[in-house]
Amino acid sequence: MSSPKVFCICIGSELLSHGINTNVHSLNASLLSAGFSVSAEITVPDKKEDIASALRWALQEAEIIVFSGGLGPTFDDITREAVAETLGKKVFFSPEIWKRISDYFLHRSIPVPESNRKQAFLIEGGEEIINLVGTAPGIFLEEDSRLLFLLPGPPVEFRPMVEKFLLPKVLNRYSDANKAVEMARYPISGVPESIVDEKSRAIRSSFEEKGVEWTILAKPHFVELWASIPSCNLAWKDEISFSLRNLFGLAFLGEGRNSLSQTLGDLLVERKLTIALAESCTGGLLGHLITEIPGSSRYFTSSCVTYSNSAKRRILKVSRSLLRKHGAVSREAALAMAKGAKKVGKADIGVAITGIAGPSAGSSDKPVGLVWIAVAMKGRDPVVREYSLGRDRTIITRRAATAAMDLVRRTLLEDTGQSI
Amino acid sequence: MSSPKVFCICIGSELLSHGINTNVHSLNASLLSAGFSVSAEITVPDKKEDIASALRWALQEAEIIVFSGGLGPTFDDITREAVAETLGKKVFFSPEIWKRISDYFLHRSIPVPESNRKQAFLIEGGEEIINLVGTAPGIFLEEDSRLLFLLPGPPVEFRPMVEKFLLPKVLNRYSDANKAVEMARYPISGVPESIVDEKSRAIRSSFEEKGVEWTILAKPHFVELWASIPSCNLAWKDEISFSLRNLFGLAFLGEGRNSLSQTLGDLLVERKLTIALAESCTGGLLGHLITEIPGSSRYFTSSCVTYSNSAKRRILKVSRSLLRKHGAVSREAALAMAKGAKKVGKADIGVAITGIAGPSAGSSDKPVGLVWIAVAMKGRDPVVREYSLGRDRTIITRRAATAAMDLVRRTLLEDTGQSI
Repeated sequence: MSSPKVFCICIGSELLSHGINTNVHSLNASLLSAGFSVSAEITVPDKKEDIASALRWALQEAEIIVFSGGLGPTFDDITREAVAETLGKKVFFSPEIWKRISDYFLHRSIPVPESNRKQAFLIEGGEEIINLVGTAPGIFLEEDSRLLFLLPGPPVEFRPMVEKFLLPKVLNRYSDANKAVEMARYPISGVPESIVDEKSRAIRSSFEEKGVEWTILAKPHFVELWASIPSCNLAWKDEISFSLRNLFGLAFLGEGRNSLSQTLGDLLVERKLTIALAESCTGGLLGHLITEIPGSSRYFTSSCVTYSNSAKRRILKVSRSLLRKHGAVSREAALAMAKGAKKVGKADIGVAITGIAGPSAGSSDKPVGLVWIAVAMKGRDPVVREYSLGRDRTIITRRAATAAMDLVRRTLLEDTGQSI
Repeated sequence: MSSPKVFCICIGSELLSHGINTNVHSLNASLLSAGFSVSAEITVPDKKEDIASALRWALQEAEIIVFSGGLGPTFDDITREAVAETLGKKVFFSPEIWKRISDYFLHRSIPVPESNRKQAFLIEGGEEIINLVGTAPGIFLEEDSRLLFLLPGPPVEFRPMVEKFLLPKVLNRYSDANKAVEMARYPISGVPESIVDEKSRAIRSSFEEKGVEWTILAKPHFVELWASIPSCNLAWKDEISFSLRNLFGLAFLGEGRNSLSQTLGDLLVERKLTIALAESCTGGLLGHLITEIPGSSRYFTSSCVTYSNSAKRRILKVSRSLLRKHGAVSREAALAMAKGAKKVGKADIGVAITGIAGPSAGSSDKPVGLVWIAVAMKGRDPVVREYSLGRDRTIITRRAATAAMDLVRRTLLEDTGQSI
């Protein structure tokens, strides 16, 4: 059976003027695991005639049509109505869905707004896709053997519906064992994208000849190689891991690890170590990233975000003379902050970040983008490193937080040569 | 004359898997100044049949078709050929364009790569759009009174071609000064989307009748109403502001304010006040959001992220007996943390967040999503509020940080009834 054509229709006027929509990326990644991919993404404003026009084209071309957005409670959420009209179907009120929505508000002690009633309407012949995160239920429809999925726009609601509902439905209809592939992710930390590209070219080519497709994804201070590996040749997954380990050493996190904060967290749990932070230019981002992991309270004790010099003195006990002599952005300050963090947070490991995120306050010897990161760990010499992380405030802070997690991870692993 | 329909076709497989493309945003902004907007954006992979299919739909629906990408020198750049084939036209080599490309390389002392030759091909009946920045020329075509623009994908090349070539061509054909609009943004904080929708319905309708178009955008704990106001009636912008102020009071941030952290920052600067934080379940996110604003060091001194109880005691001086009696997630703990933050951060205002972000650790009397926020301010009674912010860890922390900024802002403004 040939692969079905998949169209993704994203609805929202704001997506055409400024909004960024990554739902098609996650949809595509999920479908790749089934051996399919998205053939077209169409973005239209919240206007019935534009949604209808896109749907009519999709019905001509595609076997699977996925809608994203326009299922909320407000006046411009019209996906449900536009799809029903275009298909010549009615919508009807579902008391069952309305009860689920009411319970959602009850749980938050908010009176149920009357406007949410519209979310309790289903399209005739449609099936509710339960929303475990928000109020907007999704809707599944079959139309002339085409599969239609109406999913809410927020990624936290869209993704679980794709994984738990859409993918099984699609696989059930179109399963083709020969085409099935598994996406393997190979994260590499702290190596620029172009170097990862160059160094991995030979191994990529050799597997490409056998049918593996590659994608390269760059995030701040973090690159992921994605490989679509035919499910009948899954042994290749480890072969690739082995080669990347040889090429990149500790920079390679290991297949399937999709975040540095999770990797670091697992390592800290395994070693039974606790961690405390001292942040300056990152303003709390490092603590935020570390605590995004459920269960991080097992190893994370505290982060002291000391923006002002007096806070560095008072909270972290960095001496006035040190700050006067070397400045707050210096090797010495980073080391003192890491030791202070470890002590005040009563942790096994203290980590400090101090740098210049700009846009102002840079100078010729301490330019915007200069960041010092230090790691103080009981029973061993402290580690401190200087970084130059670009010129953009947002990127600098993001890179600094990532680099700090990576430095702790490497410091822990260098002892043993172990890889995680 | 009615507005022409504009379709934007973006070409690139990477755009479906991970790439972010903002060309449609800049195109839309340029067109809005002329009174038009984009009716659909279509993204397709670098495959001839997918480009052809998108073009055929666009030819049925739109008067103006703008291509972005696929004009480079490599094997997967096939926009020119796909468009020519679909229209049944030939491509031909232009010595003039080839000379311009050769000069571009000569100027940079690089031998001209043979692969760039393909960029010197024009579609018959087409006109070159000169590229002042890179090697890929654009192509302009008229087809059955439709205007087609093939533009290169990199924004630094795409944008000048839109401004200097596309816009004048379009205006020349479809000029209608009466249609030009300006987008006004009206942010409302701490009011659920559905309530904003309901309460603003009457004022929206009254302006809709005069030709204003509305969009509603929901972010965690924050809603924006967008209005496209005809440029000849810009006085309506203030009239709408005035009405929204009456409807929503302090919840309305003021037209054009696009973030709570910037609004709060401006208010702190104006009042010459400093702020210090104590965070628990948000893990540093509040400090991160506040310090995303350049210049926040003028008012932000510190944030103590105290995840463990012992850190709350040691860093913020919350008493052991208080924690034992009321627990870390309680009105009393929030108040003590806010006071501790104010003192240790030596600030005018102390803000504390303590709550249960889950997924575990909830109980029947303290469920996941329960959050206490307190504000301690010199010279006035402390403020403390209980929130119930949902069930998802990421959403709870995001809402809690936003709610905290909003509570500080309201506390500052309630004194004076002033609006910012």
